[in-house]
Amino acid sequence: MVSKSQIKLITSLQLKKYRNEHQLFIAEGVKVIQELILSNLVLEHLFMTEAIFEDVIISKKTLVTEQDMKRISALSSPSPCLAIFKIPKPSKIENKGLIVALDDIRDPGNLGTIIRLCDWFGVKQLVCSPETVDVYNPKVIQATMGSITRVNINYVDLNVFISETMLPVFGTFMHGNNIYNEKLPNEAILILGNEANGISSRIEKSIKNKIAIPRFPSAVGNASCGDIQQTESLNVATATAIFLSEFRRIS
Amino acid sequence: MVSKSQIKLITSLQLKKYRNEHQLFIAEGVKVIQELILSNLVLEHLFMTEAIFEDVIISKKTLVTEQDMKRISALSSPSPCLAIFKIPKPSKIENKGLIVALDDIRDPGNLGTIIRLCDWFGVKQLVCSPETVDVYNPKVIQATMGSITRVNINYVDLNVFISETMLPVFGTFMHGNNIYNEKLPNEAILILGNEANGISSRIEKSIKNKIAIPRFPSAVGNASCGDIQQTESLNVATATAIFLSEFRRIS
Repeated sequence: MVSKSQIKLITSLQLKKYRNEHQLFIAEGVKVIQELILSNLVLEHLFMTEAIFEDVIISKKTLVTEQDMKRISALSSPSPCLAIFKIPKPSKIENKGLIVALDDIRDPGNLGTIIRLCDWFGVKQLVCSPETVDVYNPKVIQATMGSITRVNINYVDLNVFISETMLPVFGTFMHGNNIYNEKLPNEAILILGNEANGISSRIEKSIKNKIAIPRFPSAVGNASCGDIQQTESLNVATATAIFLSEFRRIS
Repeated sequence: MVSKSQIKLITSLQLKKYRNEHQLFIAEGVKVIQELILSNLVLEHLFMTEAIFEDVIISKKTLVTEQDMKRISALSSPSPCLAIFKIPKPSKIENKGLIVALDDIRDPGNLGTIIRLCDWFGVKQLVCSPETVDVYNPKVIQATMGSITRVNINYVDLNVFISETMLPVFGTFMHGNNIYNEKLPNEAILILGNEANGISSRIEKSIKNKIAIPRFPSAVGNASCGDIQQTESLNVATATAIFLSEFRRIS
């Protein structure tokens, strides 16, 4: 049975403040938890409903009722298990290879999807501005599907980071150079900006290579009619997918 | 003031059954509603809180309290406006250009993101299997950011559709041919499958060209250690982004 103090601890971990204080985070769902256990993360405790409790052979486990699972879960439809893990210390940034840097990404789903994309495209380093959503936010953990253990994630001042690197720096802008015409290096820093405002002007100053995904058709022509409309922008996670694909494709 | 019968109607429109019965759908948020009004959609009624009511000059409007807005909204943080629109009749499918076909996409956010991608990449036709989530689901409308009015969307039996087209048919699979090595035509049908199961075997039989996004590094080598793990798959919306980018890029 889950105790009152455990319920208090677990629900507090939905907030960054308490995750930092306790150096713990929560994960939900069989598949995500399995992947995290198989990696080097330290499991603190596992809470399970009757549906799967007997099947899991592990010492640090507690049986909870479905009602209690609803109380401790951050999900609208709770899974049969919830785990508490220790937050690992991030490794130092290795300044090589392709590195993705995020300037103020706010949506947890976007950050989770970007981490999964980094994993797919062999990007080992993800660097986030301090304003970027916390990687141990439960919604980020849910969206990464376990990729979080295979990408090294650091929160740093991006301007300091850029000033210290020898790698070429690429930033994504609405009016950058056509990505399809660029010769892209194997080693680089690729910066993506905030969902609403893009890369901040503070960071923009340090970026030499501005790139963009052109709309199709790339030249709409000088049509005089006013009814040609098109979507204003791509979602930052889908844009990241296309930029990483361009950096990694065999041309 | 919003009446009891209006509240009943609006909340019922969160379900496909009642959207079909009334041939109406709801949209929330200033920007989305603005885009829908500017397109050819027929506005049935607009509900607004005091925050913006006086600023909007339109006859079919009703002032609602913030409390009532919470009752009629499908969002956890309601916007100051909610609109009811008539569901337009889809145009007939034009069998030309690049057409995206979806086999049983269940997540409204994914469908919305894919519609936005179609808009960005100039895909005018989206064809969905009958099991695919309803395009007038409020969460889809939210995610499309207005792109829904620029893409013609039909729900049809995909096998019948494929059997009747003269266009080459491409399907996306985990173990298809490397997309980066394929010569892709300007006119084609691109099929994407369900989030968990991919393209169904029933549809797979009709697909001649199987394509895939390779993981990086594409050849992991014959490493004998068992700890090389990588994410199993890409989210269907990010995969769509990469496939459409490849079809549309200037090579």
